Amino acid sequence: MIVDVDELKRTKLDFDEYIAKVEEIIEEVKKRGDEAVIEFTKKFDGIELKKLKIDDSEIDDAYDRVDDELIDALEVAKENIEKFHMIASVDRDIRVDFDEIVLGKMYVPLDSVGVYVPGGKASYPSTALMAGIPANIAGVRKIVACTPPSENGGVNPLTLVACDIAGIDEIYTVGGAQAIAAMAYGTESIPKVDKIVGPGNIYVTAAKLVVQKDVPIDMPAGPSEILVIADDTANPHFVALDCAAQLEHDPMALAVVLTPSKSFAEKVEEMAVELKCSDRVKIAVVDIDKAIEIANKFAPEHLSLIFEDCEDYLNKIRHAGSVFLGNYSPVAAGDYASGTNHILPTAGFAKVFSGLSVESFLKHTTYQILTKDGLKRIGDVIIRLARAEGLRMHAKSVEERLKDQ
Amino acid sequence: MIVDVDELKRTKLDFDEYIAKVEEIIEEVKKRGDEAVIEFTKKFDGIELKKLKIDDSEIDDAYDRVDDELIDALEVAKENIEKFHMIASVDRDIRVDFDEIVLGKMYVPLDSVGVYVPGGKASYPSTALMAGIPANIAGVRKIVACTPPSENGGVNPLTLVACDIAGIDEIYTVGGAQAIAAMAYGTESIPKVDKIVGPGNIYVTAAKLVVQKDVPIDMPAGPSEILVIADDTANPHFVALDCAAQLEHDPMALAVVLTPSKSFAEKVEEMAVELKCSDRVKIAVVDIDKAIEIANKFAPEHLSLIFEDCEDYLNKIRHAGSVFLGNYSPVAAGDYASGTNHILPTAGFAKVFSGLSVESFLKHTTYQILTKDGLKRIGDVIIRLARAEGLRMHAKSVEERLKDQ
Repeated sequence: MIVDVDELKRTKLDFDEYIAKVEEIIEEVKKRGDEAVIEFTKKFDGIELKKLKIDDSEIDDAYDRVDDELIDALEVAKENIEKFHMIASVDRDIRVDFDEIVLGKMYVPLDSVGVYVPGGKASYPSTALMAGIPANIAGVRKIVACTPPSENGGVNPLTLVACDIAGIDEIYTVGGAQAIAAMAYGTESIPKVDKIVGPGNIYVTAAKLVVQKDVPIDMPAGPSEILVIADDTANPHFVALDCAAQLEHDPMALAVVLTPSKSFAEKVEEMAVELKCSDRVKIAVVDIDKAIEIANKFAPEHLSLIFEDCEDYLNKIRHAGSVFLGNYSPVAAGDYASGTNHILPTAGFAKVFSGLSVESFLKHTTYQILTKDGLKRIGDVIIRLARAEGLRMHAKSVEERLKDQ
Repeated sequence: MIVDVDELKRTKLDFDEYIAKVEEIIEEVKKRGDEAVIEFTKKFDGIELKKLKIDDSEIDDAYDRVDDELIDALEVAKENIEKFHMIASVDRDIRVDFDEIVLGKMYVPLDSVGVYVPGGKASYPSTALMAGIPANIAGVRKIVACTPPSENGGVNPLTLVACDIAGIDEIYTVGGAQAIAAMAYGTESIPKVDKIVGPGNIYVTAAKLVVQKDVPIDMPAGPSEILVIADDTANPHFVALDCAAQLEHDPMALAVVLTPSKSFAEKVEEMAVELKCSDRVKIAVVDIDKAIEIANKFAPEHLSLIFEDCEDYLNKIRHAGSVFLGNYSPVAAGDYASGTNHILPTAGFAKVFSGLSVESFLKHTTYQILTKDGLKRIGDVIIRLARAEGLRMHAKSVEERLKDQ
């Protein structure tokens, strides 16, 4: 649909209603553990769970049930994701000697992480890779995953295989807000973790927002989004397909195309009609500079740049989850196999959040080793500032150390 | 007070009661903007504000009123903080060519940040430095600060000077939950920011926990903490002073000393009695390995290691905000002037959070540029996985690109 540029507004998600709903679920899981988890699974998924944890024989069995070609595909995807994430990891221990004042910074992985792997009707094995692989590179000691039961009560075998290939240590057949609550506070079967990551539906996200006062999360997640900036050098069919791909994720997903070319806009519209998604693909005609400005305000999850010399514009992009340049870089490449992460900030959160990476699973600790001479060098500054802040003991802790013995 | 090791439990903070209280304040500020901010300041601080923003003449005036020696002290502190934070910054743009698949990661600073600088009875100019300096190194475009009014309605001149030296662009005389709400949602005078950082009292922290569903925060903050592991090579006077210094921050602050030496424990106790804080300094006798284990479970904000060969134990520390090694590294050094950051995770959050750093103000965007041959190389993997996930258009977006034209 060709629209005016002013109509390109994202509907703001209001989580408040969902937060109220999930708060009750979280309280029950906190109080009654497994019992509540089993009850909610019956209520929401219609499944009567006998146990929550997937055992090793079920994983072995899953390998037997999954097509070898698919297992190979997961292995190749894993290799590429691992390669890029290792190179892109910026953890870097440093130690500097500033003349008798040694300062350092060391990176340490989290002890444990919980991954939410969406599932239910469809299955998302790729999400297991995107969370498990960087957590393993970081060195997280225990990685657990929760994923909703499929209709027969088990977990989709491909998801099980993906979790295993991704190095996830424990898998639980629980979904929804009850899964987030279980990982945040622990139950008899499901361990409490130090951080929860991974996308989910609006109830999962609302639950992550509620528990984050106690257990940090990766980021809030909204519906998928693509914003394309393209000119006549772009293939309109490819552009329309990337939009259609984004839209098949979710009825609330968003696809925007900005182009300086009216005829290109019309071609994309034509293709979108063919793909039966023209009512949901918003196309606007604006020049490239204005399009970049709109993209930065929008901070889309996925940003495609397909126009002449588009690489020269990369450094003008301030806010986007991930950027795809040129005709042969479909978003699907990053979704599965090129090596970048597909767990990305949506809903404008790319203004503040990064996509998942090895650093999502690391934190640093600073340290210092001063000699008496080192402390002497900055002693006056500390004493003056501490006194000015009225912190007498802070000043004294330095004064006494600097006295001649 | 010498206690049994089992008694070394941290009281868990329960924010729920405070969250309910601040939610109302936040709603009012969201609805009524400046008017509500001014009302709450009258109610809680007893100050009738005529305007919220500090103007340039007030900053100039503050420089005149602050002792030159203190200004010098702030400048030296700034220089050291800047030096370490620049070296320790791990932002690192990378771009790798994996045979026709170019993948990259680029760092971009946040557009705007709000800093909460605690104040009121006391003033904390050092906090302005600790937040403002790394935000400036990162390249944040707009840095605003909120700090409570002092008794006469203005802001402590030393805090104003510190904000200015730290490169903070705008300063507002507002404190408490109303300040957090104003920075999270914006008012007529106070701009909405993209992230809120800085420590505060329990109302400020509760407000940060509430707004973080919309605006990310640095980390939750609880009362200050120190855990010391020391043997007979440590000076018990210094250890007791560091504890006393930590305790003067807050009636709920925490000081724990672990030592393998009973006589050392007694000496610290004696000093603590002298410093009138023996009831609040918890001393337990345990061996060094056990002490390290306790420290990692505790994940203290500040960890002092003062024992023989303590540097060899640094790599055993998994969870601590910042570590201070040896007799001449008081926590006060890191609080003000050695160069490390003093905005650190408390309440056990060092298990998951890092102290403030340049990276707190950066996020990254990944990107990819594939040629047709590059896409061909991973096309099968994408198509198989997309189909397995039931995402037909994802598969098609690759298939169509790989067709011979």
